[in-house]
Amino acid sequence: MNTPHNAALHVHPIAIARSPFKSRFGIPRQSGLVADALGVIQPIKPWHRQEAWVGIEQYSHLWLIWQVHDRPHQPASSVRPPRLGGNVKLGVFATRSPARPNPIGLSLVKLLHLEHHNGHVLLHVSGLDLLDGTPILDIKPHIAFTDCPLNSHSGMAREAPLRLPVDWSAIPRAVRDLLTMNEQSVIEQTLALDPRPAFHDDAERVYHCPLFGWHVQFRVQNRIVLIIGLSALPPSGAPNRTTTPIHTG
Amino acid sequence: MNTPHNAALHVHPIAIARSPFKSRFGIPRQSGLVADALGVIQPIKPWHRQEAWVGIEQYSHLWLIWQVHDRPHQPASSVRPPRLGGNVKLGVFATRSPARPNPIGLSLVKLLHLEHHNGHVLLHVSGLDLLDGTPILDIKPHIAFTDCPLNSHSGMAREAPLRLPVDWSAIPRAVRDLLTMNEQSVIEQTLALDPRPAFHDDAERVYHCPLFGWHVQFRVQNRIVLIIGLSALPPSGAPNRTTTPIHTG
Repeated sequence: MNTPHNAALHVHPIAIARSPFKSRFGIPRQSGLVADALGVIQPIKPWHRQEAWVGIEQYSHLWLIWQVHDRPHQPASSVRPPRLGGNVKLGVFATRSPARPNPIGLSLVKLLHLEHHNGHVLLHVSGLDLLDGTPILDIKPHIAFTDCPLNSHSGMAREAPLRLPVDWSAIPRAVRDLLTMNEQSVIEQTLALDPRPAFHDDAERVYHCPLFGWHVQFRVQNRIVLIIGLSALPPSGAPNRTTTPIHTG
Repeated sequence: MNTPHNAALHVHPIAIARSPFKSRFGIPRQSGLVADALGVIQPIKPWHRQEAWVGIEQYSHLWLIWQVHDRPHQPASSVRPPRLGGNVKLGVFATRSPARPNPIGLSLVKLLHLEHHNGHVLLHVSGLDLLDGTPILDIKPHIAFTDCPLNSHSGMAREAPLRLPVDWSAIPRAVRDLLTMNEQSVIEQTLALDPRPAFHDDAERVYHCPLFGWHVQFRVQNRIVLIIGLSALPPSGAPNRTTTPIHTG
């Protein structure tokens, strides 16, 4: 019954994540960093029935094990995490880079509530760091006594990243008022993390980031994020990646 | 490039875990519970080279994403966790039961040190809860600021399980002295967690548990674990499961 050491394991999505992040660019580099990033986990049949989820509301946080699905899979032994400025080479297993041998990600989200809709369960979560449409391979409860050892220390990722101030003053009030409160805060929290590649430092360069149904344009000057454009994305068939890929560390 | 929702993902082991646990029976129900359970992670080519691990020593704890490999895979929507006495039915996603749709486990271990041996890297870890020979699909650093939200609460698994006292007095000193100090403490920590199925309560019933190269016999009377037998396992081809399967929750 033991599996030969190199045998492939075939896994299938059990759910799909719906998220405000419509392209890789801008996605926070860890879960929980954009606390207001609300999302919905849609279980796939036959896991959509309530019986598979009984008891899950007793947990405040859930692990999502997910598939890196938006790029051709190119595993590497070494990576240069953007967080470290792109100058430091680390072993792929010393990072959470998606360039790992098996394209499997791990994210912790907060469980807000379960929705029951025509016999289907939907999980409303926050703190998402997943691209819209990401296939979820497994969901497990977060168990603090085993997942949070008191003496854990985390080398290069000891603290949450700094946040930059975000300046909306270039956006007319009437345009900004088209956004919901949640859209405003997710856009602000996302850009405050400075999604630019770490080696970019050109105050004139304009970046584009699709969030929700919005096309957000910004640049970064004197460590302040300036939002300089905001327009509605085409209603469907919107591109889900830009020409400025990132989120590689 | 987006994956169809039900497409299978093929993953391959990147390492094998070597562990003192030679059968499912007795394996702690979460990682970290048997702190002295030392193990070795043996990366599989081409991931055995140092370059894939550079920087990992900056982290005290590592996530192992592993394959449940020792049983025919039988996913279920509902399970009865042994921790809750086998009487409570929960959704599989509200547990860490191996009976989940994709046979993927998640364990946190402490990284003790890296060994470099003829160009191969070996990772020495503790707090293992894996069967000897378990295929590892991914290893990621534990990052406390994102993995340990301050406000996490964990429903039915709020606290570590109680430990029972362990009585060695039936084992002659000369036999006990054949054990290393680590073997003694792992046997003691493992049995203190009371690996019996929760619905068993027969003080006369004798249980068998293979740990390291030892065949350990015990029974539980008045909430005390009595070790009543200790003999060497056959040197190879030892069975890696017993007729008393457990570790299902």
